[in-house]
Amino acid sequence: MYIRNAWYVAAFPREVGERPLARTLLDEAVVLWRLPDGRPIALEDRCCHRSLPLSMGRVVGDRLQCGYHGLEFDAAGTCVRVPGQATIPPGARVRAFPCVERWGFIWFWPGDPDDADPALIPNWWWATHPDWAINPGPVLYVRCNYQLITDNLQDLSHLAYVHTRTIGTGAIVDFPVKTEREDGLVRSTRWTVDSPAPPLFATASGYGDRPVDRWQIVETTPPCHTLIHAGCALAGVADRCGPPDGAGIHIKVLNAPTPETSGASHYFYAHCWNFRQHDADLKTLMFDEFKKTFEEDVDLLAAQQAMLDRAPGATQIDINVDAPGLACRRMVAAAIAAEADAAPRRA
Amino acid sequence: MYIRNAWYVAAFPREVGERPLARTLLDEAVVLWRLPDGRPIALEDRCCHRSLPLSMGRVVGDRLQCGYHGLEFDAAGTCVRVPGQATIPPGARVRAFPCVERWGFIWFWPGDPDDADPALIPNWWWATHPDWAINPGPVLYVRCNYQLITDNLQDLSHLAYVHTRTIGTGAIVDFPVKTEREDGLVRSTRWTVDSPAPPLFATASGYGDRPVDRWQIVETTPPCHTLIHAGCALAGVADRCGPPDGAGIHIKVLNAPTPETSGASHYFYAHCWNFRQHDADLKTLMFDEFKKTFEEDVDLLAAQQAMLDRAPGATQIDINVDAPGLACRRMVAAAIAAEADAAPRRA
Amino acid sequence: MYIRNAWYVAAFPREVGERPLARTLLDEAVVLWRLPDGRPIALEDRCCHRSLPLSMGRVVGDRLQCGYHGLEFDAAGTCVRVPGQATIPPGARVRAFPCVERWGFIWFWPGDPDDADPALIPNWWWATHPDWAINPGPVLYVRCNYQLITDNLQDLSHLAYVHTRTIGTGAIVDFPVKTEREDGLVRSTRWTVDSPAPPLFATASGYGDRPVDRWQIVETTPPCHTLIHAGCALAGVADRCGPPDGAGIHIKVLNAPTPETSGASHYFYAHCWNFRQHDADLKTLMFDEFKKTFEEDVDLLAAQQAMLDRAPGATQIDINVDAPGLACRRMVAAAIAAEADAAPRRA
Repeated sequence: MYIRNAWYVAAFPREVGERPLARTLLDEAVVLWRLPDGRPIALEDRCCHRSLPLSMGRVVGDRLQCGYHGLEFDAAGTCVRVPGQATIPPGARVRAFPCVERWGFIWFWPGDPDDADPALIPNWWWATHPDWAINPGPVLYVRCNYQLITDNLQDLSHLAYVHTRTIGTGAIVDFPVKTEREDGLVRSTRWTVDSPAPPLFATASGYGDRPVDRWQIVETTPPCHTLIHAGCALAGVADRCGPPDGAGIHIKVLNAPTPETSGASHYFYAHCWNFRQHDADLKTLMFDEFKKTFEEDVDLLAAQQAMLDRAPGATQIDINVDAPGLACRRMVAAAIAAEADAAPRRA
Repeated sequence: MYIRNAWYVAAFPREVGERPLARTLLDEAVVLWRLPDGRPIALEDRCCHRSLPLSMGRVVGDRLQCGYHGLEFDAAGTCVRVPGQATIPPGARVRAFPCVERWGFIWFWPGDPDDADPALIPNWWWATHPDWAINPGPVLYVRCNYQLITDNLQDLSHLAYVHTRTIGTGAIVDFPVKTEREDGLVRSTRWTVDSPAPPLFATASGYGDRPVDRWQIVETTPPCHTLIHAGCALAGVADRCGPPDGAGIHIKVLNAPTPETSGASHYFYAHCWNFRQHDADLKTLMFDEFKKTFEEDVDLLAAQQAMLDRAPGATQIDINVDAPGLACRRMVAAAIAAEADAAPRRA
Repeated sequence: MYIRNAWYVAAFPREVGERPLARTLLDEAVVLWRLPDGRPIALEDRCCHRSLPLSMGRVVGDRLQCGYHGLEFDAAGTCVRVPGQATIPPGARVRAFPCVERWGFIWFWPGDPDDADPALIPNWWWATHPDWAINPGPVLYVRCNYQLITDNLQDLSHLAYVHTRTIGTGAIVDFPVKTEREDGLVRSTRWTVDSPAPPLFATASGYGDRPVDRWQIVETTPPCHTLIHAGCALAGVADRCGPPDGAGIHIKVLNAPTPETSGASHYFYAHCWNFRQHDADLKTLMFDEFKKTFEEDVDLLAAQQAMLDRAPGATQIDINVDAPGLACRRMVAAAIAAEADAAPRRA
């Protein structure tokens, strides 16, 4: 069902403060909290004594205290105090998940802790680089399987039908998509050349009504992280092989939809840009327009999932724009199969 | 479970306008929309590409356009355009249901389209005849199996207990019901003679406190259409064999409860009358009193269904007034069995 | 699942008046109503005709009349009238449960009526004795199995973590609990000596900041009735063997959590006290503080049950304070096994 040996986003840093945060991630009840030094901790959210969610308790120093009988757990999930008795029963511990804060997100690793190498976290350096501005999004709760979100991000032709108010234009669908499959990466590229910019880009770039060349380069890596290189330049400036270094406006959209269950996702996203970085009005505009755009997808994806649930075996036809999404699904399926294959050998 | 080769009401005409209407009918997701010439169309409400409900899209000329990737479907359910590519994949179609507007309702046929003869629609001519006034009701959503509604309509003795505020009197239960079974019809007849009129009738007729002879003739035809001939005349005027042609006040109640699922129904109804047809106050009074009456049944039927669901195998005793309802259930069961029997021979 | 040959609380007397009351008790739909002489009656809440809940009907003299077709049932559950016909069909009856009003509660017996001896109702005489004041609580609806409530009541160490605003102090957990198992009774006793009184007790007793000896003696009898003897006296006054007769403030908390289903409970409680019995302000304070305290448990118990449902097979470790709760569970399990064992022999 899921790739387990991988980093997933568990929360935005702003969500984990003095009070523990409860969140279901990959079907697991997880509680997120912080040590006094700020380090985020992810534990199983079920007291090993009488099953109260530990997220109903409170942080006491470097321990999480259960809100029912006061048992205390350290960062490794070990019970280190039982009120009213001197000894700790054997087996008094909860599961601890590797947990790291990086690039403006808190990541957790639901698989084998021994494999949890932080170097495997996607290199989303724009998020913390001084030349780039960033807007972390809200956490969108989407009632769909996380792979529908990858499909959605890897097929930006839907902008022409779903997001005409913000980032869509009808011109998009007239240009073909190139799909590239590399080891652990699916990339789709669409150049929409010599066309009007969509509303948000026309405003943000200052190009107004002038025709632009627009690029959308969408890179998905397992388990479900999609980096979008988006932008546009005045028509004829870019070389149409890759986004130009100096010219045009550049936006990086960081997408991390984490499965809550097989039928619902916590969708974390942020967008970074390298122009008018200190323009507060633009920052607000970007935040609002992206939010409006993504929320249009939320309703659509939930309706899609609901219909899939109603007719689980129904045939679906494929069209040209599905190629990158299908490549992503194959990539994820292969990784899940590889984990299933490796499991007995480890045991 | 259902008779499939039959016309069911899908909507009131007023519900299907510029925007497509989503409605679940006999467990099927259906989208209703109109061609530019006004003809109603009923299609499967699931895009054959990625399963988005087509009801989330929009009508573009004589086509329905999917709100996700812009595929377009014609009135026959055939995909006739895929944006961004010249060819249509084989099998790109959705199911189309025969659909007709008649007698103030939109009807659809969930069975074999070859058998969908509009002449099989019940002849509810009062709905559009100039001598008769009509009040189409609201669509009542009732959390019960559609056959409980037929039971309810075929046993008007419940008026004495449920609808005392509007059309019920205690006198009803003192008079026997005659049940007639014809081919494709169950009729129950009750004459409540020389008794006070119920509140609504007393007001509408102008008879006031004078005793009346009242008739309730309830005719059910498969799958679930119930026509009620109701009315009253001053006591002694009618011949008690059938409703008098010239005397008294006459009301025709058209009832079409369409199954949404086995446990819920869209209950469409209208009532027609041939007296004071242009009296706006009476029209409002009739609308309000019928609505109040039918909504009393909505709560009762939902409670009945909920209890049946709690105790599915529990014994129920029958009493005299159940005869017509039981006859209707046998009529429907025989039709379902006949369809099941015919299916292999067709195949 | 449940002990069936036992008295359970079905309602507070104030809940059963002119209108019948619907309540699910031990998975059974029950309707509660009163005869003209005030005697409470508990019947199966499903008409034997067409399954409408009888609670939707009305009391007519000494009968309960169904709200659909007007069938009438007497206190024994026998149908004694079918409108419109002279004879009553055989088998026209609903189940009647023995039902008694005592000690400020209405009790019902879901098992064999022949065994329903009112002498088996717990002797909670304080509820109606003139020397004692009483506050019946609200009915708390708790989304948990009833045994989690017994666990909660039998382990008052949680007061130190859950109820610090009202009746909890950290001192509680420093004193051990003594568990006694008698025939049909589990008793736990904790003396918290020479410690500050918790907020409610300090106010109610007038002791203020002075140290007290506090007792909590918790007695559970099958199926799920828990009587708490609580109170405190100035430190050194009590003999620490049992609550002193003359000294200190005494509170009796009567607890009767009745299963609605295996996953939810109607929690009835009342508290009685023998000091400042006519002080209206104290009465209000007691009511509010107990309600606040018990409602803290409602949220906690629902969260605990939800987590148990998510991880039904998960291991739970036991700690010292669990001893009385575990003893209660064994006592209940033994009674259920004894009933299962007796059933074939009766048959």
